[in-house]
Amino acid sequence: MLDLPKCVNVCECWVRDGLQGYDQFIPTENKIVMINRMVDIGFKRIETTSFAHPKLVRQFSDCQDVLRGIKRLADVTYIAIIPNDKGLDRLLEACDKGYGVQEITAILSASEDHLLANIERTFDEAMPPLADVVKRARQAGLKVIGCIATTFGCPLAGEVPIEKVIELTDWYLSKGATSIMLGDTTGEANPKQVREIFGRMRDHFPEVDFIAHFHDTRGMGLANTVAALQEGIVLHDSSFGGMGGQPATRRPRYHRGFAGNTCTEDVVLMMEEMGIDTGLNIDDVIETGLMAEEICGQQLLGHVTRSGPVRHRSSRPISLTDLRPNREIPPALLSAGKVEGSLTGQTLIGYVIRDALAKNWPLPEGLKISTDEIAFKGELDERDILYTRFRVLAIQTERDEAIMEVLSQKADGDVFFEGRVRFVFSTIADL
Amino acid sequence: MLDLPKCVNVCECWVRDGLQGYDQFIPTENKIVMINRMVDIGFKRIETTSFAHPKLVRQFSDCQDVLRGIKRLADVTYIAIIPNDKGLDRLLEACDKGYGVQEITAILSASEDHLLANIERTFDEAMPPLADVVKRARQAGLKVIGCIATTFGCPLAGEVPIEKVIELTDWYLSKGATSIMLGDTTGEANPKQVREIFGRMRDHFPEVDFIAHFHDTRGMGLANTVAALQEGIVLHDSSFGGMGGQPATRRPRYHRGFAGNTCTEDVVLMMEEMGIDTGLNIDDVIETGLMAEEICGQQLLGHVTRSGPVRHRSSRPISLTDLRPNREIPPALLSAGKVEGSLTGQTLIGYVIRDALAKNWPLPEGLKISTDEIAFKGELDERDILYTRFRVLAIQTERDEAIMEVLSQKADGDVFFEGRVRFVFSTIADL
Repeated sequence: MLDLPKCVNVCECWVRDGLQGYDQFIPTENKIVMINRMVDIGFKRIETTSFAHPKLVRQFSDCQDVLRGIKRLADVTYIAIIPNDKGLDRLLEACDKGYGVQEITAILSASEDHLLANIERTFDEAMPPLADVVKRARQAGLKVIGCIATTFGCPLAGEVPIEKVIELTDWYLSKGATSIMLGDTTGEANPKQVREIFGRMRDHFPEVDFIAHFHDTRGMGLANTVAALQEGIVLHDSSFGGMGGQPATRRPRYHRGFAGNTCTEDVVLMMEEMGIDTGLNIDDVIETGLMAEEICGQQLLGHVTRSGPVRHRSSRPISLTDLRPNREIPPALLSAGKVEGSLTGQTLIGYVIRDALAKNWPLPEGLKISTDEIAFKGELDERDILYTRFRVLAIQTERDEAIMEVLSQKADGDVFFEGRVRFVFSTIADL
Repeated sequence: MLDLPKCVNVCECWVRDGLQGYDQFIPTENKIVMINRMVDIGFKRIETTSFAHPKLVRQFSDCQDVLRGIKRLADVTYIAIIPNDKGLDRLLEACDKGYGVQEITAILSASEDHLLANIERTFDEAMPPLADVVKRARQAGLKVIGCIATTFGCPLAGEVPIEKVIELTDWYLSKGATSIMLGDTTGEANPKQVREIFGRMRDHFPEVDFIAHFHDTRGMGLANTVAALQEGIVLHDSSFGGMGGQPATRRPRYHRGFAGNTCTEDVVLMMEEMGIDTGLNIDDVIETGLMAEEICGQQLLGHVTRSGPVRHRSSRPISLTDLRPNREIPPALLSAGKVEGSLTGQTLIGYVIRDALAKNWPLPEGLKISTDEIAFKGELDERDILYTRFRVLAIQTERDEAIMEVLSQKADGDVFFEGRVRFVFSTIADL
């Protein structure tokens, strides 16, 4: 059916593209916490900051402090936006002091109107100094992403000719760029167009690594991501909670409506569901998305952050590593008519709990379920249907125990039982 | 590139699937207003109501009144959900009185757990009475959609075997169903799976009309819609503002997070952008989405409702029909260095306005622009960049005039000029 790549590399852009349009300054330590968390959960490409003029985009006035503070792993590519020679000077200084990046992003727009709106320069004015930035960065041993913003259309100028995108790609490559980002900066792209443009660009530049960078302004971020995947693109950008958009300068907004990037949580889940390896675990990604919400003090736009992953029954027996504090386990349904024999009391509760758990995982041998802290609240009739759901209250690794909140309701909403249940996984106590 | 259908039929589900999970009762007259508006703007398939038991789903206690009140066009298919024989009795009574529907939807789930959760019946209990409903409806001359909910996965049971979906399709067809809806009732589907399942179903049932019905729980509604399009599916369901979800009964929620359908505004824009004819105009669709928001008293989830359509320069000169009260015209950018010669005063204002307008449409001959109600607020320097934007205040059709609010700002946010501008399109006054 769909011919998709087997694995992809998702670049997390929250700290840079995600925050650049956010009015509130996010404290440096929170940016560092987020980047470190991204590193910990397996992101291999991270946009860390921008060396935009600190007065123009205050959010990035701490760019050097962020780079100095973050955790480094050898197999992670740290990326920074470099808008001009002064930004490069400051980055190279950081590199000299040991806290640089391996890769920079240079930005041009395929639409001159957008370029004027963002940096108040025409092509003729913007390109020569940017060429110097690219060359100097290459001489300093950095890789360079040549970003072509508004590749798929411009909110100020409308259609963008693909010839311009090809011309700018040629130009970037001639200056030494090591990859090319095709940016749907303001969410104008549609899946048909994404296939056409990426298809033509791959035909034209078969050796070039292209990066797909979509915004979700019109809700097509994921659909466009699939289209790019179908053209074999393996480098994808996204941002936690779908944050992102036009830099928060004093300039007039050219954006209407949502401005954010394609949402990391949703992208990663979609990839996982399609069997594409991202090297990430969706539960980790959702938790990091919730951290981003906590830092911003508001609910963001991730769908999966609210819905949780798609339910699949695991082929491995449940173990403590499957549980996370405060997370729910997908609910299970039991038709009371299927309850064996004449179970009553704690035995019945234990049966219902085991049955509900077994809808998610096979139960390991020796699993002990303690139901002392649960009491009946109703009678069970053969026609009753029970929904049983769990929330993880605490994990006690040293004892191989988990304590869960459990609620079992009938179809009419009445509570059948509720309370706390303790799962003991190992048989350590028996040794 | 993408082999997509040339035209599709979008079924608007807001009044039924959209509202069934909405706690607040929407007054009958508002439901009628919305359906009439859908008819007016060109929807050819509309889910009008459900004949669920009025005590179970109060939202549809007015189903007969809705059907009695709505506008009828011969080429529109009006659809109602019929859950059981009593619902069919009531519908047939309405048909006899001249305000029925042409098509009903019968619903089963591919997951028995979901069936139990929704109607408290097993397959064995649910199917025989539903078979009677299908047969009786067919005898009464109605078409029947056989809906298979949770085709792509179940939040209570996880994976759903495609063999079950094939079995239920065979069963529906044997009872007389005229089309089959594959429902991703709770947003578990992914694009790869959608292609696989629709592909296999089409291979298995090449003569059957399949309907794609997706929910946006995990943000994949549009991506899944594209996948269905790629399998040649031309019947698509969606709901204004992405409303929808589990019926608002007393039963426990099996849904976490967003529950809504794929959003009509976003679907229609995406189709239009991909060159697929929906028979709808996106501006009409957005306005109707805004009506839905007004009726619900809250902002809904449509992206396009906020962003507006994608900007394209029209090939036709601007006319009064391109303008709608209270709508914005996409902003335009002008580098002051490009202003001809030494324009000043009202002449300069007129130049900037014409230039801004011309970025959206060619200007018709004889267009008069009256700038009397605009005053300068600043000086213009050659390095200045102007953003000029318009909002339509009033349309005076009889005079062929439009009055617009205009705001022209410099890149630093300072206002260059603002006020009201009058466009006179015809030369009637000169005759």
